[in-house]
Amino acid sequence: MSQTRTETEQYLANNSAYAATFEGPLPLPPARHTAVLACMDARLNVYGVLGLAEGDSHVIRNAGGVATDDAIRSLAISQRLLGTREIILIHHTDCGMLTFSDDGFRESIREETGIKPPWAAEAFADLETDVRQSAARIKSSPFVPHTDQVRGFVFDVATGKLDEVVL
Amino acid sequence: MSQTRTETEQYLANNSAYAATFEGPLPLPPARHTAVLACMDARLNVYGVLGLAEGDSHVIRNAGGVATDDAIRSLAISQRLLGTREIILIHHTDCGMLTFSDDGFRESIREETGIKPPWAAEAFADLETDVRQSAARIKSSPFVPHTDQVRGFVFDVATGKLDEVVL
Repeated sequence: MSQTRTETEQYLANNSAYAATFEGPLPLPPARHTAVLACMDARLNVYGVLGLAEGDSHVIRNAGGVATDDAIRSLAISQRLLGTREIILIHHTDCGMLTFSDDGFRESIREETGIKPPWAAEAFADLETDVRQSAARIKSSPFVPHTDQVRGFVFDVATGKLDEVVL
Repeated sequence: MSQTRTETEQYLANNSAYAATFEGPLPLPPARHTAVLACMDARLNVYGVLGLAEGDSHVIRNAGGVATDDAIRSLAISQRLLGTREIILIHHTDCGMLTFSDDGFRESIREETGIKPPWAAEAFADLETDVRQSAARIKSSPFVPHTDQVRGFVFDVATGKLDEVVL
């Protein structure tokens, strides 16, 4: 490959191969009525880890897999408009969110840009505690109607296994 | 399968098969220095569509694939702490976000629960316009330092192809 070719362009070449054998369209509502909220981490391939196929499940991801207001927005749309009923939370070992503090991250941005972000970074000190925090935020939200099937897991980046967190 | 078995439990059975051939751990920073921001839609398998392997790229997803403040938070962490440099935006055809309005969604929640969400639903009327809106939000953010490689696409749920949006 040429030195000036971006990763994005290489992904686009992969897309041609994907489309060549693609069969669609599938229905809009998720066939298995699930929504996954997971960390954005590159090692956490949610499709592989859960055996998801196209059309099965909504997948919501952000830094940490945290139940932020935006994740609540997505879950509200997922359940209220598209019929999902189960929620699966996935954090993972060796997470970057364990390596800094909200205060430190915001202050470093202020030092560099002169502007402190108006949002918290949502860093955390303990994986299981933060899975429980996300579950608690979802269960206490008036905007997410179905919370009897919320389960939380920590993905082990060394073994590929999901370990359940007692909520 | 038993009638009482949840989809989550079936996914956990899939996880055992995944872990059996899993090889890890990989490094924390994404090997290909990319971050994808895509819609949560069940038909949009980002790993398949882009040919992503474990460890390649951060994957951020929400309802619509919109550059919300929370997506900006994730992108800021991705670039500032974990070294990513390219951003790939993916919306898709037949998106649920085209089927309702922010006002209508918030009002329906108010009618049902008595509480109007403090957030906008981030619905949109045109796919390409909203891809451009997300790109513009990212490029104007003081918190995302590297915006020379931001590209936007619409995934066609009928063909599996990515169509680029001129930003």
